Amino acid sequence: MTKSFKPAPALTLADINPYSVETQYAVRGEIANLADELAKQLKQGQKLPFDHIVNANIGNPQQLKQKPLTWYRQVLSILQYPDLATKARDVYPADVIDRAQTFLNAVGSVGAYSHSKGAPVFRESIAKAIAERDGFPSDPEHIYLTGGASAAVTYLLTVLNQNEKSGFLIPIPQYPLYTATIALGNAVAVGYYLDEAKNWRTDPAEIRAVIADNKSKGVDLKALVIINPGNPTGAILKEDDIAELIDIAAEHGLVLIADEVYQCNVFHGEFVSVKKVLCQLKEQNPELYNNVQLASLHSTSKGVSGECGQRGGYMELVGFTPEVEAVIYKLASINLCSVVSGQALVELMVNPPKPGSPSYDTYQQESNQIASDLRERADRLYDAFEQMEDVESQRPEGAMYLFPKLNFTREHYPALFDEAAGKNKQVDDVYALELLKNTGICCVPGNGFGQVEGTYHLRTTFLAPGTEWIDKWAQFHKQFVAQWKKA
Amino acid sequence: MTKSFKPAPALTLADINPYSVETQYAVRGEIANLADELAKQLKQGQKLPFDHIVNANIGNPQQLKQKPLTWYRQVLSILQYPDLATKARDVYPADVIDRAQTFLNAVGSVGAYSHSKGAPVFRESIAKAIAERDGFPSDPEHIYLTGGASAAVTYLLTVLNQNEKSGFLIPIPQYPLYTATIALGNAVAVGYYLDEAKNWRTDPAEIRAVIADNKSKGVDLKALVIINPGNPTGAILKEDDIAELIDIAAEHGLVLIADEVYQCNVFHGEFVSVKKVLCQLKEQNPELYNNVQLASLHSTSKGVSGECGQRGGYMELVGFTPEVEAVIYKLASINLCSVVSGQALVELMVNPPKPGSPSYDTYQQESNQIASDLRERADRLYDAFEQMEDVESQRPEGAMYLFPKLNFTREHYPALFDEAAGKNKQVDDVYALELLKNTGICCVPGNGFGQVEGTYHLRTTFLAPGTEWIDKWAQFHKQFVAQWKKA
Repeated sequence: MTKSFKPAPALTLADINPYSVETQYAVRGEIANLADELAKQLKQGQKLPFDHIVNANIGNPQQLKQKPLTWYRQVLSILQYPDLATKARDVYPADVIDRAQTFLNAVGSVGAYSHSKGAPVFRESIAKAIAERDGFPSDPEHIYLTGGASAAVTYLLTVLNQNEKSGFLIPIPQYPLYTATIALGNAVAVGYYLDEAKNWRTDPAEIRAVIADNKSKGVDLKALVIINPGNPTGAILKEDDIAELIDIAAEHGLVLIADEVYQCNVFHGEFVSVKKVLCQLKEQNPELYNNVQLASLHSTSKGVSGECGQRGGYMELVGFTPEVEAVIYKLASINLCSVVSGQALVELMVNPPKPGSPSYDTYQQESNQIASDLRERADRLYDAFEQMEDVESQRPEGAMYLFPKLNFTREHYPALFDEAAGKNKQVDDVYALELLKNTGICCVPGNGFGQVEGTYHLRTTFLAPGTEWIDKWAQFHKQFVAQWKKA
Repeated sequence: MTKSFKPAPALTLADINPYSVETQYAVRGEIANLADELAKQLKQGQKLPFDHIVNANIGNPQQLKQKPLTWYRQVLSILQYPDLATKARDVYPADVIDRAQTFLNAVGSVGAYSHSKGAPVFRESIAKAIAERDGFPSDPEHIYLTGGASAAVTYLLTVLNQNEKSGFLIPIPQYPLYTATIALGNAVAVGYYLDEAKNWRTDPAEIRAVIADNKSKGVDLKALVIINPGNPTGAILKEDDIAELIDIAAEHGLVLIADEVYQCNVFHGEFVSVKKVLCQLKEQNPELYNNVQLASLHSTSKGVSGECGQRGGYMELVGFTPEVEAVIYKLASINLCSVVSGQALVELMVNPPKPGSPSYDTYQQESNQIASDLRERADRLYDAFEQMEDVESQRPEGAMYLFPKLNFTREHYPALFDEAAGKNKQVDDVYALELLKNTGICCVPGNGFGQVEGTYHLRTTFLAPGTEWIDKWAQFHKQFVAQWKKA
C-alpha cells in the first residue's frame, strides 16, 4: 500500500511556549556549556592552557571532592538494603541501625511512594527541629518534603501566579531559579536592589518605593522573596531587617518566600529565621501579623551536607488560608511524592547524633572540618580578590559564594567596553569567558543574577579544593588588567 | 514604637492561579483522603467494619509488601556508603561491587548534582538497552533522566503549550496526570475514546475525526499521548495500531508522547515500543516519517521494580529540532538534575545481571516471582469481577490495573441514581465510597480517568497481597446490588 499523506514539518521555536523560549538560566548557560566543551576536549587529549575545569559556577560541593557525612550515608545504605542491619551489623554504630530501623518501621520501604507531603515520621521530626531552632511551635501538617528547594519554589510561584499582572518581588542580585520560574509562568519579576555599599543589606525604603511604583503600574504583587543567607551575595540579614520585611509583607498582603537553604553556612554573624521573627512579632501584636503568610525553604544540598544529588528539601507553610494551602498540596500530589531517601536525609540533617551517642564524635569531627574548610577557603578567596586591582568584594558572612565587583569603567577600560559591545556582551561576560579559556575556572557573570546598571560582578563558589586555582585566577587577573586597562 | 499600618488579609482562592484551583487529580482525591482519615481512626483504636485499608487506588507495589529486588538495593547501598565495598565485602556478589564501582568512578558521589540530562554513564547504558530492545540505535545525547515519568510529562507539556488554544490529544480513559498538567497550563485536553468493546483498542478513525473537529474549532493540536500498556485500561497496543498512530502524528505534525512505563508489565500479548515502529517506518519511507517527533517515557516505579519512592525515570527524544530540544533541556537545567540514586536505579533496571554473573540467579528468581504473582492476582481479580452481577471487565493484558465496568442503569438501579444525583456525585463515586466505608478497599471511580458518558467504571490495582480482600469485595458487591437493584 502506498501511503499518501503529506508529512507535516517538525516544530520550531515559533510553535512552542514562548515563555519557555525566553526563560534564561545563567548558572547552566553559555559559560557552563563552554566549560563542558572544554572538559571534553581535555578528555580527548587536546592541549589547553589548563589540565582540568574548576567548576566554581555552581554550589556542588561533592563534585569538588567534599566528602559526604558518614552518619547520613550509613543510615541511607541500610534504608536501601535493610539486610545490612544484620549482615553487616559490625560496620555500623548502634544509633545508625536504630535510626534506620525507626524509618523502616514507619515507611516500610524507601521504594514506596510516601504521603505526598512526605512521610509523617520525617515531617514530625522536622517540625520538632524547627521548634527547637526557633523556640516556637511548628506543625508537621504544614511541612512539605520537596525535591530540593527548587521544587518548592515551583509550587509556590505556580500557585501564586494568578495572571500576567502577578508580580514577585525578588532581590537583585538573585538566584536565577526565581527569574527563570517567573518568566516561565509569564508573571512579572520585580527586582528590589540589595545595597552593595552596606554589605548587601536589604533596604526597606527601596522595597516600599518599588512596591508603590509597581502598584501604580498595575502590577499585582503576590510575594516577596528573601534569600538569607544571600545567594549570590553571601550576606546575612539582621533580625531588624527581617522584621521590616515582615512589616512590608503584612501591610501589602505579600507571601514571604524565605529561601533559607544556606542557614547552616554562617561564617560571620548569626542566622535568624524569618519564622522566628514572625512568631515574635505575632506574640507581641497578633492583629497586625496573624495574616502574614510565610513559606520557608530548606535543603540538604547546602550547609555541611552538600548532598545536592539526593534532592532533599522541605518547605514550611505558615498562615496560609486552608483553601490556598490545599491547592499547594494538590500540586504536590500530582507529582506523587519527593524521593523518599531524600526525605530521610532531611531528617538526618535536622536531627543529627546527640552528644553521647555512638556516632556523635565522628559526626562532629566531620562536620566541623567541612565548616572550617569552607570558612578558610572563603577567606582565602576574599583575600585574593582584595589584592586584585579594580576588584572589590564584601567579606563573606554566609552561603557558598562570593560576588566580587569588577570596578571596570569605560574611562579606564575603553577597549574592553568596545570589545564587549562588539560581541553584544557585557563586560562581566567577557571577563568570565576569558577566565575560563585561560585558566579552566568556570564562574558566572553577575548579569545572570542581576546587578545595578553599569556595575559588573562575578559569582564564584569557594568550594574547589586547594589554593592553586586561586593563584591562577590572581595571575590571570593581572594579565587581564594589563591587557585592557588604559595606561 | 506603635506600628500603624493596616494589615492586609491572607490570600483566598480568588487571588491565586485559577488553573491551579480548577485542576483535578483523582488518584489522590476525595476517596484517598477519606482512606487516610479512616486509617487514622483505625490507628486511634476506633472500631470500623475492617481492620486495615487496602490501597488499590495507586500503583505503589512496595506499600503493599512487594519486596525490592536485591540486585538494585545492594548496588544502591554501596553508592550511598562506598566503604561497604571493603568493610562488608562478603555481603555482596562480585558483580554488585563491580557495578557500584563503575558508577562511583563515573559520578564521584551520588550526592553531587549530575549533568542536567543525567550522568553520561547512565545515559549511555540506557541508550544501549533501548537499541537492544528495538534493534535500532539510540543516542545518549537525547536521553533525559527524570524524576519518575511525571517530571518528563511536565517538561513536555510545558514546552509544547504555546497558548490557550494549544491542544493535547489524550486517551479516554487516561492517567489523570495528563489532564491535571494540561489544566494547570490552561491548555485544551482533547480526549479520544478507547474502544472498550475491542478491549480498549485505539480507533484511528475516531482520532482522525476528533482532530478534524478540534481543528475546525481552532484548537492547535500539539501532541498525541499514547499510554501503552494502558493505564487504567491494561490494554496492549498492536504494532499495526501503533503504526496508524504514527501516521496520524506524521500527517498532523503532532509530537508523540509515548508513556511506556508499563512496558515490563505484560501478561498477554507483546509490548512493542513506538520508537521501534517509528524506526521501521522511517527505514521504509524516510520522507514520510523523518519529521516525526517522539518522546518515550519509562520509569523505575512500575514493571517488577516497583521502586516508586526512588523517583527514577527517563525520556528519549527522537526527531525534535535542535532548537526545541534545547528548550526542553533548559527546563531540565532549571531543576538542576533528577535524584542521582534514582538515575542509577534506571541503569540497574535496563541492564540487569547477565546469565553466568553471580547475581543472575537471584535476580531471575525474584523478578519472575514478582511477575507471576502479579499475573496470578490480575487473573484472580478478573475472575472475581467476571462473577459479579452487572460487572464486566476486560481480560488483563498488561500494566497494574483493571478497569471494570459497572453495568448500572437508571432503569435497574433508579434509587442509586437518585442517591448519586442528590449528592451531586456520579454512580461510580457512590460505589467507591461505599466500598471503602464497608471494606477498607480504596479504588478510584472511573470518572477520574474519563469514560463514555453514562458508563461507570472503577480503577483498581491488583497489587494487594492475599485474596481475602477480593472475597470481601465480592461480598460487598452482592450486598450493594441487593440494596440498590430494583427487584
